[in-house]
Amino acid sequence: MLDALRHDAALVEAELDRLLPLPDSGPRRRLQEAVRYAVLDGGKRLRPFLLLQTARLFGLPPARALRAAAAIEMLHCYSLVHDDLPAMDDSDLRRGRPTVHRAYDEATAILVGDALLTQAFAVLADPLTHPDGDLRCKLLSGLAEAGGIAGMIGGQAIDLVAEQSGLALADIEELHAYKTGALIMEACRAGALLGGAEQQEIEAVLRYASDLGLAFQIVDDLLDAEGDTLAVGKPVGQDAAAGKATFVSMLGTEAARARAGELVQRAKDSLAYFGGRAAILQRTADFVLTRQV
Amino acid sequence: MLDALRHDAALVEAELDRLLPLPDSGPRRRLQEAVRYAVLDGGKRLRPFLLLQTARLFGLPPARALRAAAAIEMLHCYSLVHDDLPAMDDSDLRRGRPTVHRAYDEATAILVGDALLTQAFAVLADPLTHPDGDLRCKLLSGLAEAGGIAGMIGGQAIDLVAEQSGLALADIEELHAYKTGALIMEACRAGALLGGAEQQEIEAVLRYASDLGLAFQIVDDLLDAEGDTLAVGKPVGQDAAAGKATFVSMLGTEAARARAGELVQRAKDSLAYFGGRAAILQRTADFVLTRQV
Repeated sequence: MLDALRHDAALVEAELDRLLPLPDSGPRRRLQEAVRYAVLDGGKRLRPFLLLQTARLFGLPPARALRAAAAIEMLHCYSLVHDDLPAMDDSDLRRGRPTVHRAYDEATAILVGDALLTQAFAVLADPLTHPDGDLRCKLLSGLAEAGGIAGMIGGQAIDLVAEQSGLALADIEELHAYKTGALIMEACRAGALLGGAEQQEIEAVLRYASDLGLAFQIVDDLLDAEGDTLAVGKPVGQDAAAGKATFVSMLGTEAARARAGELVQRAKDSLAYFGGRAAILQRTADFVLTRQV
Repeated sequence: MLDALRHDAALVEAELDRLLPLPDSGPRRRLQEAVRYAVLDGGKRLRPFLLLQTARLFGLPPARALRAAAAIEMLHCYSLVHDDLPAMDDSDLRRGRPTVHRAYDEATAILVGDALLTQAFAVLADPLTHPDGDLRCKLLSGLAEAGGIAGMIGGQAIDLVAEQSGLALADIEELHAYKTGALIMEACRAGALLGGAEQQEIEAVLRYASDLGLAFQIVDDLLDAEGDTLAVGKPVGQDAAAGKATFVSMLGTEAARARAGELVQRAKDSLAYFGGRAAILQRTADFVLTRQV
């Protein structure tokens, strides 16, 4: 499965490289460079991988889902760039390199995020993504919902409030369902839509993605509590330092790891209907549990 | 024509009110309130007006172009909120009220812009905007291009560079073609597309919009140089204080006003083909020249 992840990551990397404008010699050069810096040569590409593998589950070859996969990754990268800003999480390091506002400047980082968010939608709207305009709009609506106030932006807003006032465990689960879960679910939904899945099949895939997304976030909290900066590629111990309520601070390390394990098992069970065809997605769930980055 | 502008602005205001989520009692309340603060109860609504009036030029009643008009205004408002941020233009006043980051905080202002950009696309992707998915995607592609690196974001990036290094007159025209012109052109293009215009008609409308957009920006520079804060609703004299190259600093007040006048005349001439049906759009061009806000 790690081979498949690396293989698809290379495909996605090449597609992103094609889709992002090359820096020209004009006054927008710095911005164009910063956009590429924010996206290329980094990350596990987990969300596009989930999209490509879900599409494959329904018989669609990766080449025909690659633009949608790149769009999802653009949206993910935009959210990282904006979340890292000084007014938000104020992070200096991302994927083992300085964050965009550290490598460039704050104004450029704001514009980079805006540009990536805009281009994610532009890529989906293009007929090259899929010949059917109604389907493209469904992908667009899904991405906008996952990225909007009912999704990632809402989650980040809750996260900002949470740092001040603290949250109960159910609130934290809700926060992460917005902040991380929505886009992971949308990746799988988009793959299923592109693959022509039936409603019932889409629902099975979404149950998988929902549990996977929450497990992913719990492991993120564990890595922040236990990992080391060099391996994780971003500063660790930030949550505790900020006095942030996390799964680890609420449940303790052991119970948090156990909860992630249960969620991963349930995610895998949700795909039982697909038999051996779902093997890679099931092993992806195991990877989410054991990952060190 | 001022009556038509006020009438359409009220329609757009009501549509925006319907489309923006009402604040709930949860932890996203502050963000939801700030989104509405950024959009409602302010502004001339010139871009949606141009969209509605162009649609009307081709026989489409406003009710059927209102969602697209609201989407254009959301995109415009997002760009104002982000451009006003401390790391960008650092403005305290907009439409006679504190800017979003002053009324709330910087993190909220970043998220408000992100949310409005996202929702603009969500509104266009929805079948309620138009039954034809391919046409909705055309509107989306146009808005993404006008808003992206080839449009507003690119213009803002040039503007940030320009403050340091200075620009020639041709560069300033290019900057504003990106920063202001692209969205004004897109408003007219979207109205024409929704109205079912022929290619030749779209081109005439775009010539009008291109000249109108540049005239609009020259008048903006004149108001910044000559207007007073109370009437304009935002601080004036900022360009000169920042040592910014503007049409006024390059051409002088008189030549700048003459150039705006020529552009407005040419804009009106571009619509001659439509005869009396284009009267409101032609009077809008006169308004752009004489406006005091």
